[in-house]
Amino acid sequence: MREIDWIRRYIAPLVDDEEADRLKDDAAMLTLNGTFALSTDMLVEGQHFLAGDPLETVGRKLVRVTVSDLIAKGALPSRAMVSIAWPKNRGEADFAALISGLGADLAYFGMALVGGDTVSTDGPLCLNLAGLGRAAGARLVRRRGARPGDQLLVSGVIGAAGLGLAALKSGMETVHAAHYRVPNLVPVSMAHWISDHASASLDVSDGLLLDAARLAEVSDVALEIDLNAVPLAEPSSRLEEVLVQCTAGDDYQMLMTVPEGCEAPGLTPIGRVSSGSGLSLCFNGRNIPLPSRLGFEHGD
Amino acid sequence: MREIDWIRRYIAPLVDDEEADRLKDDAAMLTLNGTFALSTDMLVEGQHFLAGDPLETVGRKLVRVTVSDLIAKGALPSRAMVSIAWPKNRGEADFAALISGLGADLAYFGMALVGGDTVSTDGPLCLNLAGLGRAAGARLVRRRGARPGDQLLVSGVIGAAGLGLAALKSGMETVHAAHYRVPNLVPVSMAHWISDHASASLDVSDGLLLDAARLAEVSDVALEIDLNAVPLAEPSSRLEEVLVQCTAGDDYQMLMTVPEGCEAPGLTPIGRVSSGSGLSLCFNGRNIPLPSRLGFEHGD
Repeated sequence: MREIDWIRRYIAPLVDDEEADRLKDDAAMLTLNGTFALSTDMLVEGQHFLAGDPLETVGRKLVRVTVSDLIAKGALPSRAMVSIAWPKNRGEADFAALISGLGADLAYFGMALVGGDTVSTDGPLCLNLAGLGRAAGARLVRRRGARPGDQLLVSGVIGAAGLGLAALKSGMETVHAAHYRVPNLVPVSMAHWISDHASASLDVSDGLLLDAARLAEVSDVALEIDLNAVPLAEPSSRLEEVLVQCTAGDDYQMLMTVPEGCEAPGLTPIGRVSSGSGLSLCFNGRNIPLPSRLGFEHGD
Repeated sequence: MREIDWIRRYIAPLVDDEEADRLKDDAAMLTLNGTFALSTDMLVEGQHFLAGDPLETVGRKLVRVTVSDLIAKGALPSRAMVSIAWPKNRGEADFAALISGLGADLAYFGMALVGGDTVSTDGPLCLNLAGLGRAAGARLVRRRGARPGDQLLVSGVIGAAGLGLAALKSGMETVHAAHYRVPNLVPVSMAHWISDHASASLDVSDGLLLDAARLAEVSDVALEIDLNAVPLAEPSSRLEEVLVQCTAGDDYQMLMTVPEGCEAPGLTPIGRVSSGSGLSLCFNGRNIPLPSRLGFEHGD
């Protein structure tokens, strides 16, 4: 099979780690001491990226969706294992592009590639990355843990990837399209700040409102978001346009609760935790009803 | 999406582990101290299992292909993360069957399910398991490490899965078909023996001869296999029938080198390590040429 040559040509050079024995073994061997976060994400062509997306960006997205989970837990990305189900009708240039993007972002985020699996498929390209991260500070941060009185903070801007996907589906290459293809993550160093300060944290992957509702549910608290405070990719005074961006997926921004008065550059206060349950929204100083769809559920 | 309900109904009950917070988080959180093996395997419908295979057996095979890698390294299976790209046209009964088989074998092999990802696909079912194992003894065992004078040992019988696949493709449910669907692994406790005694080890997943050649290559030694000594699923005095079984995939037996005189129940001596390079075969006391295909390469 051609894939064995491609693994030697493109993947093996990425692996300079004794732990992986240059991929000449069945498993990586690691000596680990401490607290670790372990996360895995699968990306399927046609579901999480478009069939026509450049594979260099797909490789980068694969790394970023897991890195985003790790940073949100207060963990520094450390090791990765990558599985690839490769369509029989795609050629070597596509494979080289995928691994080029993958390798660039593994290096950028400080992850050693320690293993993986490459197989053939008659179906769409299917990718999996399993990532290990080391606690950046004294502890890791769960989704649960928000306390009444905490503030809700979000990183970056919300809605860019959703607007980008909509543009790509209309055949337009907008500035946002790049953010759908390659999520714009916070610096890895934010894992230290999250580990030190956040009471609860997750990444916004399925829509700001849905992920906020999940944080509230598992923390057993009420959460109010001021929609006027949310930093949007396309700021708008129209509620409808605000909600489209707040329920769109693929943002990969950090959403966390912190004690009152805790501030950091790059994080915007957008709401408040109180006792009770459920998510509530206000816009222009008035409570508004929740939209029927808060984001994208698992399996979407 | 229906998958979110299925995750709650079928997968969440398998997760009783604090590390995974009942899957209500983005990542598992582990405290790890020691030496670990990390391995990942992807299975694709139509490539690694047949579209008509019962999904309960597919779930069990998914666990076993990674458990096999871990035991071969001298590691005790410990944690698993499972990713599922689920075809939109498959129903809930199939999902329940997959998770039933998966859960049964995770429990059997002592692995805690600590995370995963479930997504939709328009293509074939695609599964990934990333597994973590803890060194059973003082060390883990690589593919490299075989020394001149060592014996080559193999567990169980060779060729059952290949005969089973051939039978299934002819529409016959033979005794071997069950071994194609659910590999017949060694007991997990063999990881202790391998850690204590083996100089090199791997699992036979792509064909006995191919995997033996790989062991010889990375160990930089010569390896001679006595084909008459190989325990075959269908013993034969005909070289052609012997070679079919010795180059068939999916055995998931253990293949290892150990110092002279080192014996264990369930392991059969089939060859010898010497200085030099390459694999050689003898049959009825005479050297025979290597077949042109030794097994299934990556990507097959």
